[in-house]
Amino acid sequence: IVSKLPRVGTTIFTVMSALASEKGAVNLGQGFPDFDCDPALVDAVTHAMKTGLNQYPPMAGVPLLREAIAQKIRTLHGHAYDALSEITVTAGATQGILTSILCAVHAGDEVIVIEPAYDCYVPAIELAGGIPVFVQMTVSSDGYSVPWDKVSAAVTSKTRLIMVNTPHNPTGSILKKADVNALADIVRGTDILILSDEVYEHMVYDGQAHESLCRHPELAPRTFINSSFGKTYHVTGWKIGFVAAPAALTAEFRKVHQFNVFTVNTPVQYGIAEYMKNPAPYVELPAFYQRKRDLFRDGLKNTRFKLLPSDGTYFQCVEYGAISDLSEAEFSKWLTTEIGVAAIPVSAFYNTPKESGIVRFCFAKKDETLRLALDRLASL
Amino acid sequence: IVSKLPRVGTTIFTVMSALASEKGAVNLGQGFPDFDCDPALVDAVTHAMKTGLNQYPPMAGVPLLREAIAQKIRTLHGHAYDALSEITVTAGATQGILTSILCAVHAGDEVIVIEPAYDCYVPAIELAGGIPVFVQMTVSSDGYSVPWDKVSAAVTSKTRLIMVNTPHNPTGSILKKADVNALADIVRGTDILILSDEVYEHMVYDGQAHESLCRHPELAPRTFINSSFGKTYHVTGWKIGFVAAPAALTAEFRKVHQFNVFTVNTPVQYGIAEYMKNPAPYVELPAFYQRKRDLFRDGLKNTRFKLLPSDGTYFQCVEYGAISDLSEAEFSKWLTTEIGVAAIPVSAFYNTPKESGIVRFCFAKKDETLRLALDRLASL
Ligand SMILES: CSCCC(=O)C(=O)O
Ligand SMILES: CSCCC(=O)C(=O)O
Repeated sequence: IVSKLPRVGTTIFTVMSALASEKGAVNLGQGFPDFDCDPALVDAVTHAMKTGLNQYPPMAGVPLLREAIAQKIRTLHGHAYDALSEITVTAGATQGILTSILCAVHAGDEVIVIEPAYDCYVPAIELAGGIPVFVQMTVSSDGYSVPWDKVSAAVTSKTRLIMVNTPHNPTGSILKKADVNALADIVRGTDILILSDEVYEHMVYDGQAHESLCRHPELAPRTFINSSFGKTYHVTGWKIGFVAAPAALTAEFRKVHQFNVFTVNTPVQYGIAEYMKNPAPYVELPAFYQRKRDLFRDGLKNTRFKLLPSDGTYFQCVEYGAISDLSEAEFSKWLTTEIGVAAIPVSAFYNTPKESGIVRFCFAKKDETLRLALDRLASL
Repeated sequence: IVSKLPRVGTTIFTVMSALASEKGAVNLGQGFPDFDCDPALVDAVTHAMKTGLNQYPPMAGVPLLREAIAQKIRTLHGHAYDALSEITVTAGATQGILTSILCAVHAGDEVIVIEPAYDCYVPAIELAGGIPVFVQMTVSSDGYSVPWDKVSAAVTSKTRLIMVNTPHNPTGSILKKADVNALADIVRGTDILILSDEVYEHMVYDGQAHESLCRHPELAPRTFINSSFGKTYHVTGWKIGFVAAPAALTAEFRKVHQFNVFTVNTPVQYGIAEYMKNPAPYVELPAFYQRKRDLFRDGLKNTRFKLLPSDGTYFQCVEYGAISDLSEAEFSKWLTTEIGVAAIPVSAFYNTPKESGIVRFCFAKKDETLRLALDRLASL
């Protein structure tokens, strides 16, 4: 068998989680909460299973859930997606992203990827026969930002799709209104599509707002928005998310979706639809995570790590140049093995590994976990 | 947006289910049980959720579940797959099939598809850039069978994959030992791979055995076996299955899997692993469904339908030539609308619709549902 993805190995998340567990390190590597979800959510799914909602749901998702999603987006962003023809429930954002790319990208099409980038983007583009074109974010002590002039310069007549991610993994940066306007200026008058990975949509801090691309009249008609309930509701293992896109894009998305997963777990869909009736869990999420972020940042101030901003996501990036001159991968291993705290090298998010002397910590952890990690990091 | 799958519309299953519900017809069209699963299975999943098993599982699946699957295959078929490197848990068989094809089929490769064929095969081949090559099953009053001489004649130097399905949807036929030997003779000495869709593996009747392709020493090393818990445990809406394949194929499968769904619902995996400790549910399944098949077949003997054999699956095909000369699609609609029983036209399982005067009924229904359907069909 000749590999379709010859460069793919075990993901850095699996590698670092395995090393953390082998070494008994506090795992601030892979992004997932070490606390449990709301029992009311478990009860809602249990109720659905016990009332016999265990057979195929409609291909695009349970109507109740699609309506709850459309209603939430309308309330938060003022954009009215049609629940029937513009919202599709996915088996998690990764599936939504591959499916969006498979339906939109033809062999030979170029796709602009802004690095550092989440690890599933490039293999998805390659499976579609597309050609990734890379633009690197700028990084300074003010944090990461997208150089839109370089994105603009990367556009060719073959550009089919631009991938963006806000709030951004791994950097914790967010797109501001000016960024979204700059993107709109680039695509105006072209038929370029956008895939916006917004899985951390409910984790934006310091009173800032999530600039969903659906808010922009130039972008909404050409954008697949991908989101994830796993991140929002502390159930990363439930594998459920959604794609919101205009009807013409959704129609093509569903043609692929129906022959990929066909549909998504029925009782989980009903359970989440029920749970979404109460907006409190996602409305209160920024405050919940901002407190954890601040607890973690405050603790790191006693170390020689230099903190980059974390405006969104549950990630905190730090420069470790004052501590070590190891490569990011080596430093992450050393930190896990010798200090007992696992982190993720940001270099793993580049196609051609790029050394910036920066690693990523995940602060979606119990306060006691964060305190234990801070105790161990205090020596640095 | 230029469609990647221009010929795909709404599936026949969705169309017929919608018509059935609009007309108040008994739905013997789409294949799913109208009875509930074992409450013990719901309890096992609930227990997993309540004990906090709600975050990412390992990419390839929960080890307990993979071991249970390997153990079951070893017991039933004597083939020892390695749970770690040869079993992958999927988000249902459709996802397993697309992922197998995406990892194995390169642009321009030919894939032999035996018709009638389940509707996801051809779009999956097209998404991989492959070329489907069709061979039609032979049908007589003895039922459907695969003309292996024609399969052999369809092989070229470009053939990369042969797709088989046993027990077979929609025909209810099964591959016998002689079929499997014929397939082995065709591929011996070539590097052709096989994808075997065995989602109805536990529904084989009249004391016959399921000839899983893993039983054959020529085929096991080149075959992706796809199965589904949804069919076996009466939970078609849970979207969970597995792929068993030799390590070299599994390695390539997982490269695509990890960037498709990444992994599958954690509590459902733990729940099924626990439930599999008791083999009774699948050991008793043939008797359970054979009784329903016989109830349904006995009832149809009072009609002018001509019964084809149903050796496996939960489907019964019938010839309706003595009743009507409508096309299969028109007859199915008429049956749904005028008689109040929904069926599926077998023509929908052909790339170029082929009229055989045959429709498919699903007998995975409560006895009372089957009786109600039989009452309505009695006039024919
Ligand atoms: C799918 S495992 C990785 C989880 C994650 O999103 C991350 O750590 O970036
Ligand atoms: C995925 S809906 C179709 C169910 C099924 O397998 C069938 O009816 O053949």
